[in-house]
Amino acid sequence: MAAAGIRKPDRTDLLLIQLAKGTQVAGVFTQNRFAAAPVRVARQNLQHRAEPRALLINTGNANAGTGERGLADARRTCVETARLLGIAPDQVLPFSTGVIMEPLPVDRICAALPVCVAALSDGNWLPAAQAIMTTDTVPKAVSRKIEIDGRLVTITGIAKGAGMIRPDMATMLGFVATDARLPQALLQDALRSATERSFNAITVDGDTSTNDAFMLMATGHIRAAEIIDASSSAYLRFQTVLTEVACILAQAIIRDGEGATKFVTVRVEGGATQEECRRVGYAIAHSPLVKTAFFASDPNLGRILAAIGHAGIGDLEVGRVDLYLGNVLVAQGGGRYVGYKEEDGKRVMAQSEITVRVVLNRGTEQASVWTCDLSHDYVTINAEYRT
Amino acid sequence: MAAAGIRKPDRTDLLLIQLAKGTQVAGVFTQNRFAAAPVRVARQNLQHRAEPRALLINTGNANAGTGERGLADARRTCVETARLLGIAPDQVLPFSTGVIMEPLPVDRICAALPVCVAALSDGNWLPAAQAIMTTDTVPKAVSRKIEIDGRLVTITGIAKGAGMIRPDMATMLGFVATDARLPQALLQDALRSATERSFNAITVDGDTSTNDAFMLMATGHIRAAEIIDASSSAYLRFQTVLTEVACILAQAIIRDGEGATKFVTVRVEGGATQEECRRVGYAIAHSPLVKTAFFASDPNLGRILAAIGHAGIGDLEVGRVDLYLGNVLVAQGGGRYVGYKEEDGKRVMAQSEITVRVVLNRGTEQASVWTCDLSHDYVTINAEYRT
Repeated sequence: MAAAGIRKPDRTDLLLIQLAKGTQVAGVFTQNRFAAAPVRVARQNLQHRAEPRALLINTGNANAGTGERGLADARRTCVETARLLGIAPDQVLPFSTGVIMEPLPVDRICAALPVCVAALSDGNWLPAAQAIMTTDTVPKAVSRKIEIDGRLVTITGIAKGAGMIRPDMATMLGFVATDARLPQALLQDALRSATERSFNAITVDGDTSTNDAFMLMATGHIRAAEIIDASSSAYLRFQTVLTEVACILAQAIIRDGEGATKFVTVRVEGGATQEECRRVGYAIAHSPLVKTAFFASDPNLGRILAAIGHAGIGDLEVGRVDLYLGNVLVAQGGGRYVGYKEEDGKRVMAQSEITVRVVLNRGTEQASVWTCDLSHDYVTINAEYRT
Repeated sequence: MAAAGIRKPDRTDLLLIQLAKGTQVAGVFTQNRFAAAPVRVARQNLQHRAEPRALLINTGNANAGTGERGLADARRTCVETARLLGIAPDQVLPFSTGVIMEPLPVDRICAALPVCVAALSDGNWLPAAQAIMTTDTVPKAVSRKIEIDGRLVTITGIAKGAGMIRPDMATMLGFVATDARLPQALLQDALRSATERSFNAITVDGDTSTNDAFMLMATGHIRAAEIIDASSSAYLRFQTVLTEVACILAQAIIRDGEGATKFVTVRVEGGATQEECRRVGYAIAHSPLVKTAFFASDPNLGRILAAIGHAGIGDLEVGRVDLYLGNVLVAQGGGRYVGYKEEDGKRVMAQSEITVRVVLNRGTEQASVWTCDLSHDYVTINAEYRT
C-alpha cells in the first residue's frame, strides 16, 4: 500500500497484492460497454496467463472513458510493477476506481510503486480493505474457515463500493482468496455461481460501474484441501461458503450504500421464472419513490404495487399478487388486505433492516435483491463527489 | 369543480368536464399492470360507447391497488354523475390521482358532485388545470389555433404531473380538446402518434404511474374543419399542432418535476434503431448519478458515458461514441476529447436548460428524451408526501 496522491494527498490510494507462485485466478468483470481500460487489460491478461502473480489496485481515478491513452496508461503500470517484482507484465492485473474520463496520473502511481513493494506482507487484509475505500465509510472484509476432506480451508475477501452500484456480472472491486487448490475452470465456475447470488443481486442506485471486477484467487497451499471434481461434496461445501463470503461482502456494500439509513431485502416468490422474480425485485429496489418512502419510514406501500406493475411482466395477473412488509400482510389478491393496519406498517418501517416479500402466485421460482433507501445524503454525496 | 375533501379540506380536488353531444373521444392509458380502477373503468366505457359525455377527475386518491371494491367505487361515481347529468353511467369516464392503496372516499365525492354540476361553464381551462394539481407547483395548460381548409381549429389541453413520471403510452392525466371534427379511429391515431413524441419521451424518476391517462376530445363544432382522411395535408397539419401541444404539456411536467432545478434534453443520434436511441436516452435520464451531477452543476460527465455503457446495447462500439454538452464536444471516439476544457463544461452545466447530445455513429436514427435533475427537494417531497 502507498499514498500515490492520485486524487487527494496523504490518502492511501494504491494497493499491491502479490500472489504465491501457482495461484489460480478467476474473475468476472463489468458488462458495461464502457468497460474501463484496466478492466480490459486485466481481462486480457487473465486470458493470456493461467497464473497471474500480482494485482495492482488504485482508487481516485477510474481510467474509464479514456480511450487508447487509457489502455497505454494501464499497461505502463503493469510494466513497472512487473519490473519491480521480476515477473512478466501480463502477469499483473490492474484495477482502478474513481472519477471517470480523467487521465490516469501514471507517473505518480509508478513513483509510489516501490513503497508498495516494500510494504508487502502476509495477512494484511484489513489495511487492504481500507486502502481500496472511496465513498465507503467502513472497510469491508470477511473470513471463513471450513474443513474439507479433513483439511482446513480459509476463504477471505475484501470489497469496496457504495455508489454506482448495480453490478452486472461483478461489482466495484471484490477480491477473495483461498488456500484451497482448485483448477482454474472450476474456480471460475465457483466464482460465477457465487456472484449470481451475491454481487449480482444488489443495487444502490441502478448505475452499473465501468470498473466492476470480482476476483477469486486460490493459492493451493500444500496443507489445504484440493478440489478437482465439480460434482463432489467437497466442491459443494466450498461453493456454499464462498457464496456466503460473497454475500456478506455484497450486503456490506448495501449497508454502506451512499447515504443509506436502511437495509432492505426484496424477496420475490411464486414466480414463473427466476428472471421475472429478479425483474420485479429490481423494479422495487430501483424505484426512487419506494426508496424515499423507506427513508421517511413511511408505509406508503402502494408505491411498491406500482413498481411491481411496471416491472415489465406483460402477463402478470395483479389480482393474485400478495405483499408482505416484514411479516405483516399488506396486500392480498392485488388490493389492500382488509386486516392491514397502518400502525403495523409503520412499526416495520421504523426498523433499520426490512424485508419486502412479494408473492406472485404464478409459479415456484424465487429471487432476492438487496438494496438501501434514497436519502438526502445520497444527493449530497453525489452532488459533491468531485469537490 | 368542487372541494370534496378527498384528502385535504378546502382544496379543489374534483373536476367535472362535460362534453357536447357528438364529441369523439380517444384515449391512451398506463401500461402499468396495477392499472388503477378508474383507468380500467374508463378504458371499458370508452370501448362500450363511441360518445362519452363526461369526464370526472379527482386528486388526492388514486383508487389503485384497491381490488374489486375500487372498481365498484369508480363505477358508483359514474352512476351518480350520470344521474345528475341525465346520461348513461358508461358515458362517464373516471380518472383519479393521488395516494395508492387507500379506499376512495366515494360518499364525499358524490356529495360534492352537485357543486361540480352547478359550476359547469365554457372555457374554464385554467381553473381546470389548477383543479387537477397535486405536487405540481404550476398549472399546465396550452392552446393553439390553426387554419385548416379555410376554417379555424383550436386545440387546447391541460395536464398534471410532477412525480412518478415515466409515462408508458400515456402520462399522469392529460386532457386535450379540439373543435375540429374527426372520426374516432383517426383521433386515436393522432393521439397515439402525438403521445410517442411527447408524454412517452419524458421521465422524472422512472416510475410509471398506475393512473396515467391522456385523452383527446374532438367536439366537431359546426364552424370548425372536418378531417376524415389520414393521408390529407389537413390531417398532417392537425397532427403537427397536436404533437406540439402535447410536447408543451409533457415538457411542462418535466420543468415542474419534483424538486427539479434543471430541464435536460437528452438527444441521441446516429443510432441503428429509434428504439436503441430511446434506450440510451433513458439510461442517461434515469441515472441518479447523472441527475445529481446536474443538480450540482458539476460536469462529472464520465457518469454519462457509464450510463450509455449500461443501456443494454450489447454490440455498441464505444470507440465511436461522441458526447456533447450543449455545443461543447466532451468525448470523441469514446474518450475525453483532447480539446475539452473543464471550464467549458462548467459553463454549460451552470445553465438551467441543458442539452446532452450523444452521437452513436452506427446508423441514422435518433430520439429525444426530456428529464430533470435529482435534488434534495425530490427526496423531501417524496419522503413527506403523505404527511
